[in-house]
Amino acid sequence: MQGRTHNCGQLRLENAGEKVTLVGWFENIRKVSKNLGFVILRDFYGTTQIVVETEDLMEQFSAINTESTIEVTGTVRERSSKNPKLATGDIEVVPETVKVLGKCQYQELPFQINRSKEADENTRLKYRYLDLRNPEVKSKIVLRSKIVADLRSAMVAHDFMEITTPILTCSSPEGARDYLVPARKHPGKFYALPQAPQQFKQLLMASGFDRYFQIAPCFRDEDARADRSPGEFYQLDMEMAFANQEDVFAVLEDVLPPIFAKYGIYHEASTAPFKRIPYREAMEKYGSDKPDLRISLLVQDATEALADCGFEPFAGKTVKAVVAPDFKGTRKQIDKMCAEVEVISGQKAYWFKMDENGELAGGIAKFLQEKKDAVIEALGLKNGDFVALSAGTLGAAQKTAGVIRKLVGTSFDGYMKKECYEFCWVVDFPMYEIGEESGELEFCHNPFSMPQGGVEALENQDPLEILAYQYDLVCNGIELSSGAVRNHDPEIMVKAFELVGLGEEDVKAKFPAMYNAFCYGAPPHAGIAPGVDRMVMLIAGEDSIREIIPFPMNKNAQDVMMGAPAEVDEKQLREVHIKISAPEKQ
Amino acid sequence: MQGRTHNCGQLRLENAGEKVTLVGWFENIRKVSKNLGFVILRDFYGTTQIVVETEDLMEQFSAINTESTIEVTGTVRERSSKNPKLATGDIEVVPETVKVLGKCQYQELPFQINRSKEADENTRLKYRYLDLRNPEVKSKIVLRSKIVADLRSAMVAHDFMEITTPILTCSSPEGARDYLVPARKHPGKFYALPQAPQQFKQLLMASGFDRYFQIAPCFRDEDARADRSPGEFYQLDMEMAFANQEDVFAVLEDVLPPIFAKYGIYHEASTAPFKRIPYREAMEKYGSDKPDLRISLLVQDATEALADCGFEPFAGKTVKAVVAPDFKGTRKQIDKMCAEVEVISGQKAYWFKMDENGELAGGIAKFLQEKKDAVIEALGLKNGDFVALSAGTLGAAQKTAGVIRKLVGTSFDGYMKKECYEFCWVVDFPMYEIGEESGELEFCHNPFSMPQGGVEALENQDPLEILAYQYDLVCNGIELSSGAVRNHDPEIMVKAFELVGLGEEDVKAKFPAMYNAFCYGAPPHAGIAPGVDRMVMLIAGEDSIREIIPFPMNKNAQDVMMGAPAEVDEKQLREVHIKISAPEKQ
Repeated sequence: MQGRTHNCGQLRLENAGEKVTLVGWFENIRKVSKNLGFVILRDFYGTTQIVVETEDLMEQFSAINTESTIEVTGTVRERSSKNPKLATGDIEVVPETVKVLGKCQYQELPFQINRSKEADENTRLKYRYLDLRNPEVKSKIVLRSKIVADLRSAMVAHDFMEITTPILTCSSPEGARDYLVPARKHPGKFYALPQAPQQFKQLLMASGFDRYFQIAPCFRDEDARADRSPGEFYQLDMEMAFANQEDVFAVLEDVLPPIFAKYGIYHEASTAPFKRIPYREAMEKYGSDKPDLRISLLVQDATEALADCGFEPFAGKTVKAVVAPDFKGTRKQIDKMCAEVEVISGQKAYWFKMDENGELAGGIAKFLQEKKDAVIEALGLKNGDFVALSAGTLGAAQKTAGVIRKLVGTSFDGYMKKECYEFCWVVDFPMYEIGEESGELEFCHNPFSMPQGGVEALENQDPLEILAYQYDLVCNGIELSSGAVRNHDPEIMVKAFELVGLGEEDVKAKFPAMYNAFCYGAPPHAGIAPGVDRMVMLIAGEDSIREIIPFPMNKNAQDVMMGAPAEVDEKQLREVHIKISAPEKQ
Repeated sequence: MQGRTHNCGQLRLENAGEKVTLVGWFENIRKVSKNLGFVILRDFYGTTQIVVETEDLMEQFSAINTESTIEVTGTVRERSSKNPKLATGDIEVVPETVKVLGKCQYQELPFQINRSKEADENTRLKYRYLDLRNPEVKSKIVLRSKIVADLRSAMVAHDFMEITTPILTCSSPEGARDYLVPARKHPGKFYALPQAPQQFKQLLMASGFDRYFQIAPCFRDEDARADRSPGEFYQLDMEMAFANQEDVFAVLEDVLPPIFAKYGIYHEASTAPFKRIPYREAMEKYGSDKPDLRISLLVQDATEALADCGFEPFAGKTVKAVVAPDFKGTRKQIDKMCAEVEVISGQKAYWFKMDENGELAGGIAKFLQEKKDAVIEALGLKNGDFVALSAGTLGAAQKTAGVIRKLVGTSFDGYMKKECYEFCWVVDFPMYEIGEESGELEFCHNPFSMPQGGVEALENQDPLEILAYQYDLVCNGIELSSGAVRNHDPEIMVKAFELVGLGEEDVKAKFPAMYNAFCYGAPPHAGIAPGVDRMVMLIAGEDSIREIIPFPMNKNAQDVMMGAPAEVDEKQLREVHIKISAPEKQ
């Protein structure tokens, strides 16, 4: 079948003596003499060595450009010098006939297939079909496919039902920029591609579905970033009726770790239950709402011990400390780390050490000598400890300490268990905050999350103290998704909006279908939507999102292989009732 | 979990005595007295009867609007009068508490949930979240999800790899109308949504993938039909490298029948191998390239026997006959059938019978008396046979006979095995035809299919005799998909285009990426893409495509629930460099 008796990764010693037909790409030929040469034949499954032993066949092979597809029929023979690194390394095939199936017309390629990753990115993308022939490049796409298939199986095994929701839908009043699609049958009106199936999945809950999921294409017209491809991306979108956040957690704690451990560059992953860290504790202990739990260091409060030590930058400020025990870093490394902290956070980092004699030394140590014992006690210091410090408002000191924690953890040995996937849930996000620009009460994250304590909390609590049933899933310091118990109750919704000076009309105007549906009796529901692309990047250990997408756009939102976007006919524009209004050339 | 101890379809006799908590929609209450009432609680999984036996609880339930979501805690009890039709019909739950989880604010709904299918379609679509609460409506969406999940599993079990291809891509120069998406970063340029992933899957083949599939969203801006929703639809898209058409057939013959038999309204489906019918034979024997093989009748040629019988409409024409043995239809039914044939085909149908005495009678019998024996012999007639006839050019006579075959088969008893799925492959489509309008040689179907015989056939054969490796999958008279062995060889492609007066530049202009890729050595490949929506309709026995789509647009390409398409802000248009050019109001 498929024109072959075996694929190119299949033949083993036990096939010796068999007559076989292989098909694949003519990867290369190493010519030893006019009647001896070694050919590598490659297909999706692997490579097989073909040993050409006649002058006639040598001539035939020599006439074929590499990267042509060929069919080779011959006999399997045990190799005299085996290659244990190759699945088919025990055998070779002695050909009787070779036939070209698809001619490569060029003797030179834009890049060497097996070294395509070294080529210029736009060239790789333009010739993506050649780039993908590189087994190393192709393997990431295969990996992605397997991960997605396993995610699906696991969700189905947990009684979730995949339901595809519309891709041509309407523009969403908040969030990122929409992709618009002019409507031919409705002049002046537009569909929009969904930024996420959020409203549809909540409507499915109101429709009586119980456990929904979807590997959902999402579309946001945003500029590219290292972990964000322009245009489209995929979410493992899920939602559960009558559920609380623990129900959601339990599902993903079951579904994700086995897939990360099975396919990941690390073979270890957190097991259920993942650590749950309240948002305020995360900021206090890790200086981040995306803590990388592989790093063992914690942030301590050092305000009481250090604020009034006489060191000017600490005066009247919150001071945070990261204590690294048994520290081996050099002065040069410390300076480099501190410089990096400043680059990333915009805030200075300070430091001192407690040397092997129990003396405070280096950095700002001279300011501490008077309070030495109090400092040692407050921070629980031991000989050999390194202390890095931040100072500022509470928020700034926390965030800078978070950067310090991460850099000390990753730059110096002994503070990080690198080879694993550490998941955690950050929970209890505040419902409201005082807007930095407005100075007024605003929603902190998603206005449609359920406030903890419901109407009572909204009526009686200090709004800044109200927490939301809103949570983030974090893995190795990377946020995979936000999720929430949704506010399914129109009365609570209106009340929640009133606190920020909005009303029922605003709720309705934002999401009319969802609001209407909830007035007809909705179940409590909760969900989340981990990003598939980010998960695949983590699992594959890839830093560029373009490596894990079969046909990615470039950073400038172009598909240079297909030539998208492109100009279209005037007739096409007329049919959908639009005109181009390009900016004036300067 | 999910707020309940059991779901509403779960409790059985063995649970009697247990204290349980159920959640769901308050479907209705039948009040027997002020302290006795029967409540139906409904969730995704089923319904459970709640027996209210106290005045206090009766008052509490009476205060709740139906379709609110509620939580009921109580004790399971064996029913005195069991309901064998209901999964939970052996038990009832005696409640201790009831709590409203999500209030339905309305006492009247737009339609009664369980009778939503009787409501006006636009009302159903506007309140789709209520329509979907109807178990009968919901069941089709559940069915769709299960079918798609099984299709995926079966393809993976056949070593196919699902690869998602871009949704934001470029406008295709042929085929249906594209949906356009203006590109913010490229003023005056547009993405287009893919009409199918055809080019991408062929590029995957050129990239070295071996067995690709995708449940692929496709987009064509065409008007709605009964079996076509405007906007988006899904294909089980697949492609195989180094494959011929038998390789493709073998996969689908394995994958589809078990799924049709498992979920279908009929429990029987063809087994491998499906009947293969060359296109010309299909037209000759079934009068259609989409034969419904459940009908046992065949079309016979009657030209020699009848063209010169003296009946004017037959003179000089091709005459086709459908012989229905042991015919029981009445004259009225025959007339009705003939009238319908004319409506559908625009051509007249004629008829006669051979009665129980061996006489030709009725319809055009009087013209046949002279040639009676020859007619009987030519058509192999027996007493009781009914003969329906068409006449015209070869094509018209065939097509009309095809309509006759279908109507006789479906209108009269005994000619059709209704309760099964009969698959077949129609193969060997002609590569070229003489265009009806142009009078010149044109491609018959897909210009990118491989001509049988390759370059040699193109150079030496009469173009009208050249067949393509192009095939249709047909089930019960419905075309599920076209497929083909693709033309992967640029030289054969150019030659095939030359025959219709085009050249290399035209090939390149149409599909530059694919043409370029094929110049770098492509494998022979073949594929197909059965329509998911059509398959689900067949399996579900649904005539309207909107019944098998979770959130369908209406026939006018609107989502009346979400309000799509909609007007957008001027700013949004400006950002993507377009203006509305609505047609002038008359």
